[in-house]
Amino acid sequence: MTTKLNIAVVGAGYWGPNLARNFHTSPDWNLVAICDIDGERARRVAEMTGGVRVVTALSDLLASADLDAVAIATPAKTHHGIARAALSAGMHVMVEKPLADTGVRGRDMVRAAAERGLVLMADHTYCYTPAVLKIRELIEEGALGDILFVDSVRINLGLIQPDVDVFWDLAPHDLSIIDFVLPGGLRPLTVSAHGADPLGAGKSCVGYLSLPLPNGAMAHVHVNWLSPTKIRQMIIGGTKRTLVWDDLNPQQRLSVYDRGVDLELQALDGAERSAATVSYRLGDTWSPALPEREALGAMASEFAEAIRDRRPSRTDGEAGLRVLSILEAASRSLAGFGAATPLDADRIAADRPLAEELL
Amino acid sequence: MTTKLNIAVVGAGYWGPNLARNFHTSPDWNLVAICDIDGERARRVAEMTGGVRVVTALSDLLASADLDAVAIATPAKTHHGIARAALSAGMHVMVEKPLADTGVRGRDMVRAAAERGLVLMADHTYCYTPAVLKIRELIEEGALGDILFVDSVRINLGLIQPDVDVFWDLAPHDLSIIDFVLPGGLRPLTVSAHGADPLGAGKSCVGYLSLPLPNGAMAHVHVNWLSPTKIRQMIIGGTKRTLVWDDLNPQQRLSVYDRGVDLELQALDGAERSAATVSYRLGDTWSPALPEREALGAMASEFAEAIRDRRPSRTDGEAGLRVLSILEAASRSLAGFGAATPLDADRIAADRPLAEELL
Amino acid sequence: MTTKLNIAVVGAGYWGPNLARNFHTSPDWNLVAICDIDGERARRVAEMTGGVRVVTALSDLLASADLDAVAIATPAKTHHGIARAALSAGMHVMVEKPLADTGVRGRDMVRAAAERGLVLMADHTYCYTPAVLKIRELIEEGALGDILFVDSVRINLGLIQPDVDVFWDLAPHDLSIIDFVLPGGLRPLTVSAHGADPLGAGKSCVGYLSLPLPNGAMAHVHVNWLSPTKIRQMIIGGTKRTLVWDDLNPQQRLSVYDRGVDLELQALDGAERSAATVSYRLGDTWSPALPEREALGAMASEFAEAIRDRRPSRTDGEAGLRVLSILEAASRSLAGFGAATPLDADRIAADRPLAEELL
Amino acid sequence: MTTKLNIAVVGAGYWGPNLARNFHTSPDWNLVAICDIDGERARRVAEMTGGVRVVTALSDLLASADLDAVAIATPAKTHHGIARAALSAGMHVMVEKPLADTGVRGRDMVRAAAERGLVLMADHTYCYTPAVLKIRELIEEGALGDILFVDSVRINLGLIQPDVDVFWDLAPHDLSIIDFVLPGGLRPLTVSAHGADPLGAGKSCVGYLSLPLPNGAMAHVHVNWLSPTKIRQMIIGGTKRTLVWDDLNPQQRLSVYDRGVDLELQALDGAERSAATVSYRLGDTWSPALPEREALGAMASEFAEAIRDRRPSRTDGEAGLRVLSILEAASRSLAGFGAATPLDADRIAADRPLAEELL
Repeated sequence: MTTKLNIAVVGAGYWGPNLARNFHTSPDWNLVAICDIDGERARRVAEMTGGVRVVTALSDLLASADLDAVAIATPAKTHHGIARAALSAGMHVMVEKPLADTGVRGRDMVRAAAERGLVLMADHTYCYTPAVLKIRELIEEGALGDILFVDSVRINLGLIQPDVDVFWDLAPHDLSIIDFVLPGGLRPLTVSAHGADPLGAGKSCVGYLSLPLPNGAMAHVHVNWLSPTKIRQMIIGGTKRTLVWDDLNPQQRLSVYDRGVDLELQALDGAERSAATVSYRLGDTWSPALPEREALGAMASEFAEAIRDRRPSRTDGEAGLRVLSILEAASRSLAGFGAATPLDADRIAADRPLAEELL
Repeated sequence: MTTKLNIAVVGAGYWGPNLARNFHTSPDWNLVAICDIDGERARRVAEMTGGVRVVTALSDLLASADLDAVAIATPAKTHHGIARAALSAGMHVMVEKPLADTGVRGRDMVRAAAERGLVLMADHTYCYTPAVLKIRELIEEGALGDILFVDSVRINLGLIQPDVDVFWDLAPHDLSIIDFVLPGGLRPLTVSAHGADPLGAGKSCVGYLSLPLPNGAMAHVHVNWLSPTKIRQMIIGGTKRTLVWDDLNPQQRLSVYDRGVDLELQALDGAERSAATVSYRLGDTWSPALPEREALGAMASEFAEAIRDRRPSRTDGEAGLRVLSILEAASRSLAGFGAATPLDADRIAADRPLAEELL
Repeated sequence: MTTKLNIAVVGAGYWGPNLARNFHTSPDWNLVAICDIDGERARRVAEMTGGVRVVTALSDLLASADLDAVAIATPAKTHHGIARAALSAGMHVMVEKPLADTGVRGRDMVRAAAERGLVLMADHTYCYTPAVLKIRELIEEGALGDILFVDSVRINLGLIQPDVDVFWDLAPHDLSIIDFVLPGGLRPLTVSAHGADPLGAGKSCVGYLSLPLPNGAMAHVHVNWLSPTKIRQMIIGGTKRTLVWDDLNPQQRLSVYDRGVDLELQALDGAERSAATVSYRLGDTWSPALPEREALGAMASEFAEAIRDRRPSRTDGEAGLRVLSILEAASRSLAGFGAATPLDADRIAADRPLAEELL
Repeated sequence: MTTKLNIAVVGAGYWGPNLARNFHTSPDWNLVAICDIDGERARRVAEMTGGVRVVTALSDLLASADLDAVAIATPAKTHHGIARAALSAGMHVMVEKPLADTGVRGRDMVRAAAERGLVLMADHTYCYTPAVLKIRELIEEGALGDILFVDSVRINLGLIQPDVDVFWDLAPHDLSIIDFVLPGGLRPLTVSAHGADPLGAGKSCVGYLSLPLPNGAMAHVHVNWLSPTKIRQMIIGGTKRTLVWDDLNPQQRLSVYDRGVDLELQALDGAERSAATVSYRLGDTWSPALPEREALGAMASEFAEAIRDRRPSRTDGEAGLRVLSILEAASRSLAGFGAATPLDADRIAADRPLAEELL
């Protein structure tokens, strides 16, 4: 039996209470404090989690000698400041999605954690659901073959957010999941974003992301705040099999279809395309049983294990950064009428000096 | 009781037999001949339709004194030649989708028909299904309010076509339907196409079309040959209500949701966006009963009525042309890595006076 | 603003905590104590509900001067004893389903409450869900016309109960719902029960109830512990419209079909059946929006209002008794190989003297 | 290549044309004539099937020297007479369901065929669908283990038949399927039927059949003409796996659930039930791919093969008789208020020696 690690949750708004409840009941963690500028709000969360300490000043919290880690659930623009302070105080950090409000700041957080040998984990909760863990496992073991396309739809009648558009609000879920299940992560060649603001809300309420991948594959994401029907579906097409994840069908969330198109190219006179022979497989469908486990609990365990094993977590800062880079490229593409926009890969190196000035 | 019109079907391949069967049983038409270079193929169709005349040369067919119209179901690249010959012979023409293989040829067909006062009809069969007719009616009477977005998905394990990509194969259905139901037709500001060819088939097998519409609205089409699950769904969001058409659910094809987001912009200090107040309607859902009627039969009637009433048909050459222009723009966008591509609007305008002065 | 009433929950097993949580958060109630022989179990529930008093002896609880009511969530065979004691102490009583383990005891409880002018309420939780409240409202206002048939299916992979069969475990839900929505309650002419025990569990694991109603109508219930798919569906056919309630479809729980069969009987030579003319209505489908409200909260309010208004609650002891009578008749029918078995209506009168001896 | 057999279809009403079309296109058969008292009706069918001979008198048909078999699709009450005449003329016979209008007549037909060594086949079309053939195969190879229960639902807004009730109209489908897939056929211990006639149609429009099977298992059938939703679902629970057949879901007709309840009885003090330990399996779901094949074509082939191989067909007269016996018992049960009613098992036994000594 290992010793429990001590953690505090920073931010007692919408998501913080969920983190607090899970760290409180985790066998790996002692929840020791809730920190929020609004002391009353923090107190309400503390009451539900065994009456832990309430702190209203971050500096007071970080001065605690007993704290191993903090989990940050505050608005995105404050992530960088809080995470940097916690890392400086020698604490491991988990950050709610998105990792930061800009790529520059996100990269700075990743670098700071790396320099100190601390774990920086992105709170990509969906990745720890039994369904997504199973998808990753299936792709890893080759059950789907090479990935040909990923099509993700996440639409619902949703709250129009005051500060972010539908891409920044919903797409982090899809992007972090695709990043998690694709071997090597989600690394699109470019990003094209198409948005619509038909109500005049001043931001996209309907959004589409096209993400061409190496080898002719493609990922696509449809997010929408204006749909009266709720759809949460991801199709992952592979050369061997194709998987459909319908998150709203608890009786059969995952379906693996042994169906597909096989294309045999025969090299005639210099590999002519016209010689292609198409054949179809119409095989069985298989739906793996999934264990019942709350994602947040699994995420809390992963955070503890990563710290103990001194390894990056499965959804580490780099993963958070990849998602962030795509969101930023999407915003640039949107401003460019959907033009194919490169990721800021070059800048990653270039802006290191810049970033360090930021502190 | 009006006299029946005489028609011949040109092309006895995949689609021709369906046209032949419907004209044969239509109260408005006498099917008088089947024309195909392959006489044997034509004969098989003729046998199933009361043993009508078999013709293997188009010139022989067009020399018939008794023919009022022809329905063309041959490969797209032959549409222009056959239609032009038929129009020159004074016959009304129905053409399988797409109207032609290029916009130039399509426009020439439209112009030629207009010059002669003949009906040129696009065989947009889906538009004559009870579901689509009902959608058009609902939008026309204002039941949905202003249209905010249209999202159409048409995916299935499909035959990889030897001559066309997935856009030209499947999207004509979606585009012709959207064109039919939107007041004024589908007139996107630009076209962005993103395609994937992950199997190396030499053409897109997965495709996405983003079509920004006036007033911030957007239409989007997802077509896919590689999906093991079949989805045929269109969501049409309006300011008043939102409609979902699930063509694979015969028990409830259309659902009209009285749900939506209302945005009230209050002008404070110069119409600040931040003053927007969002409210939700979570009203009833309503699914109109649809009559059971075969689309092809309704289309045959419409063709006859348009001829008798000397009016354009509900899916006239102009509609076919709008679909064709979007497909051509999509191909150009695809070549430009998804760049927002204008329609050949200038050319349409330039052509129009010519066309209009003639009908 | 009315004064809150004081209540204690008796029984801290599976269901008690749910009751406790809802009375604790209800604007109508003060939860003042949790009573269970197992003090530790009671303490755990008390901790989650504001640290209310823990009592291990029923007599201590009932001696409290401040208690207005008790909610009983103990095994069925103890319901009578506890309820009788509470009624004698002048308290209103809510009892978990089934009302009692035998009809005799149930009737005695009803009588005792009536004698003292106290509210005896059956905890038929499902009746307070938005869906069931809406169904009752629709039937009441005549939207369905006369009820022709009710078909209820409640199947799932379920725990084989040690003490009761699948009828007593699951059917109380269906029966209490049907009783709630039918005007005048569920009053079948007879009860036929067919059960199967294919695993040799010593009790029915698969069960069917046929309940002929007046005027040729019928209710039927299918309950099943062995089904790998979960179905919770009720179809209520009426002369005007038919309603389908699919409780596992949160996006469209209720569908009202304006479809049906009309039979016009024309009296020829003495009302010959052969002269019947059948016609069909194939009208629209309509799905009413339902408010989001937790059933237990609504039930707690109803209990309080019934006490304040000195009226029977909407699921009063009589309703509990009707359900109990059907369950008992079902057990007798089962023993008689499914023979149509009358309810114990006669005995209701007959056993009054007997019942009084019981006390 | 075997020689084709010659067949005529008797009855050109609703079902006859389907039989005619399939025998016409079958590689095993020559359709040589259509026989119907209504010559015009027969002529219309003959025209669609290559212009075969039209006969209006059965005696003329049976006098044909070239006829190997007849397929009878006339009203049930005429089956016996026509089949007997055809058998006497030395022809093999296929009969539309139900085999006859009474068990006595059905048994006489079976006996007559056996005496002459002729094939008497019941037209249980559903049994030849790919789904049902697969179910039979799965049960045969033990994939489901021992069968615990079968629950079949076939409900829809249906035509109220003038001559038969909903049991005789719809249940033959369910019963013949269950008979086909259960090893040894469907041999219930008793039959209980519950029907409702809420419209006063003079016959049951809603019906339930409870069929206890050996070893505590049970089959149950729900048929209904008054349901606005269409359901065609059969659940077959086994000790190893459970199968769900949803005939209205073409994308996943069959689902095999590796889920179930295991009951381990431990013999303590004489095999006490209380020592039962229940455990659950929550394994994967599997949906076998099904070939696309029309059932009527497969049935036509089976009829030919049975004749050639001089063996009973897979849905022979005995199978038709078992279905008929259950329907007759159902009618008797209905008259007895749902009392458990024995089959005419004694009579079957009594008849059997007669039948057996002849084939």
